[in-house]
Amino acid sequence: MSKKIFTQTAVSSESQARTGVLNTKHGDVQTPIFMPVGTQATVKTMTPEELSSINTQILLSNTYHLYMRPGHELIARAGGLHKFMNWQGPILTDSGGFQVFSLGNLRKITEEGVAFQSHIDGSSHFISPEKAMEIQNHLGSDIMMAFDECIPFPSEHDYVMHSVDRTTRWAKRCLEAHQRPDDQHLFGIIQGGIFHDMRKRSAEGLLDLDFPGYGIGGLSVGEPKENMYDVLDHLIPQMPEEKPRYLMGVGSPDCLIHGVLRGVDMFDCVLPTRIARNGTAMTSIGQVVIKNAKHTEAFEPLDPHCSCYTCKNYTRAYLRHLFKANEILGLRLLTLHNLHFLLDLMNNIRKAIHDDNLVEFSKAFYLDYYGKPLEWD
Amino acid sequence: MSKKIFTQTAVSSESQARTGVLNTKHGDVQTPIFMPVGTQATVKTMTPEELSSINTQILLSNTYHLYMRPGHELIARAGGLHKFMNWQGPILTDSGGFQVFSLGNLRKITEEGVAFQSHIDGSSHFISPEKAMEIQNHLGSDIMMAFDECIPFPSEHDYVMHSVDRTTRWAKRCLEAHQRPDDQHLFGIIQGGIFHDMRKRSAEGLLDLDFPGYGIGGLSVGEPKENMYDVLDHLIPQMPEEKPRYLMGVGSPDCLIHGVLRGVDMFDCVLPTRIARNGTAMTSIGQVVIKNAKHTEAFEPLDPHCSCYTCKNYTRAYLRHLFKANEILGLRLLTLHNLHFLLDLMNNIRKAIHDDNLVEFSKAFYLDYYGKPLEWD
Repeated sequence: MSKKIFTQTAVSSESQARTGVLNTKHGDVQTPIFMPVGTQATVKTMTPEELSSINTQILLSNTYHLYMRPGHELIARAGGLHKFMNWQGPILTDSGGFQVFSLGNLRKITEEGVAFQSHIDGSSHFISPEKAMEIQNHLGSDIMMAFDECIPFPSEHDYVMHSVDRTTRWAKRCLEAHQRPDDQHLFGIIQGGIFHDMRKRSAEGLLDLDFPGYGIGGLSVGEPKENMYDVLDHLIPQMPEEKPRYLMGVGSPDCLIHGVLRGVDMFDCVLPTRIARNGTAMTSIGQVVIKNAKHTEAFEPLDPHCSCYTCKNYTRAYLRHLFKANEILGLRLLTLHNLHFLLDLMNNIRKAIHDDNLVEFSKAFYLDYYGKPLEWD
Repeated sequence: MSKKIFTQTAVSSESQARTGVLNTKHGDVQTPIFMPVGTQATVKTMTPEELSSINTQILLSNTYHLYMRPGHELIARAGGLHKFMNWQGPILTDSGGFQVFSLGNLRKITEEGVAFQSHIDGSSHFISPEKAMEIQNHLGSDIMMAFDECIPFPSEHDYVMHSVDRTTRWAKRCLEAHQRPDDQHLFGIIQGGIFHDMRKRSAEGLLDLDFPGYGIGGLSVGEPKENMYDVLDHLIPQMPEEKPRYLMGVGSPDCLIHGVLRGVDMFDCVLPTRIARNGTAMTSIGQVVIKNAKHTEAFEPLDPHCSCYTCKNYTRAYLRHLFKANEILGLRLLTLHNLHFLLDLMNNIRKAIHDDNLVEFSKAFYLDYYGKPLEWD
């Protein structure tokens, strides 16, 4: 039986939401949680201390990118990813599957694995389930993800079935190849597109393999959000209560709320950091595009209700100036603010679950942020 | 008589070097000092707190850039430059002259001032001595610089004489136009190229006007360093002991040492921040180009003798990875390191003057950094 790594601590009486504690070698994580993304062993523009200052509990880093540059063996020689990037909290690494499958014509799938060409120099590479484990074992992440096929949307039912079965076979090979199960938790990834029978087939195959936690992959890849919520509605009740559930690559406020209401424990997404670098801030009343002319003389914070460093010390007018002048400090200040916003949202969500008023909280947040009601009965 | 703003606190027995205290409305500055440059109301990549953490005493910001974007009137409405950029320490602003004269064919000089076109949108502008004062009064800097003509190297003796006399006339107009002499110190700028008689002529004209401090302009504009040192050797003995001397636009370690030995109190330069963003670090044994292949697996700090955040927490291998991967954190970490390096050098220089062993200190530093002896008797 797999090691117990998750303890449910409170449940919502009006939804599938729950709080819990996820144990890792580098510390415990309070769930539900959003994980900032540090693709290339750095959360873009941020130091580890800044991430700690906004209560980042766990980071995600990308296996594919680190394998390509600087290389997993170099990172192992550096003492592992935590030491290399100066982050002593938990780290989750993805499997590389999502990036490899995103390469399109640059990759070829066989039962053995995936052959592909580097996005950096065009060199040829091959990632198999065993290779994905080798890379992640070298990185030393606290949570590793099994190597899966992330299918595009839309995909044919027949193709999805073949893919789901292969992902299950690959998952078994990952379990067998994993060299450090005492230090690193390995999660399986449930696929199946938007087909309920395929999600069920994937879940059954992977639950039999008894992973300590499960990712829900292949969502937020172009399908309507209603399809995502529908998949979660049907899939999550089939997933074990005593194991963490990780909805991969999802991080907009609406998806976080809808995901938590349906029982998701973990999320990650580049959204908050990426839109920050484009000059878009998340605030309690929705998105603010800082370059807009109306902020030229706005000598007020991005968000008067926000307690982050950016909002405590700078005006919209100054932030707009930094973006107009292409100054890096602008990217830093908006990144910090957006991550703080989502981490603070998750903190409030955990509190609301504990107080059993999550639906009320979510409805109020949603109305303020989107200016329309949350659809939830 | 101008207000006394500077007190000499120690003198070197073997050179013209001295320590002193420069009083400003936002605090005292221990000299000799290097001033990091925040061209567009931000020291590129840094927060004010980070600048404080490396003992930045005073910043420079550029009048020309702030006049063009976001505009001095906007900054005044924001509560002044200190509040706008969240820096509560002293700020020095240049006059805009250097940038305007760097525009080449885009500007036209008359006795009244300089007409030029914006580097941003090509729009037409006119800066006169009075306008330069108006802008800097709006910004609210602690130290303002008179509007001068910064002549190129080489320039004909005859042109230099006309230019020096005009700069003196402009300086007088600046004094008369200055609206906030109680809050903001106005420095005159001594020009004269590399001609001793012209430097003398400029100094005499400006000393008659009794500014509380003096800039030495028009150096480090392409002339050999020996010419710069030669000008300082002859000019500084003509300058008053009781007023601060500011060598403008100079900041390489050799020039800082040679300048201090000759009696300079203040320096500024974009060098440490600019080369940092190009991946070059200043270390106790000279410059390090972080992208070089030899640092690929260098699991050691940039500089083992350095106590900065970067050197305490990151390896050369990680810094190289950040630069190879175009990650902003790399720009931040090298900028912080280089500024720390120069500010630490100035701190050691002040201590050496106080202990009266500046020449010994300088010779040891120079040999370590440049691998060759300092030329000084």
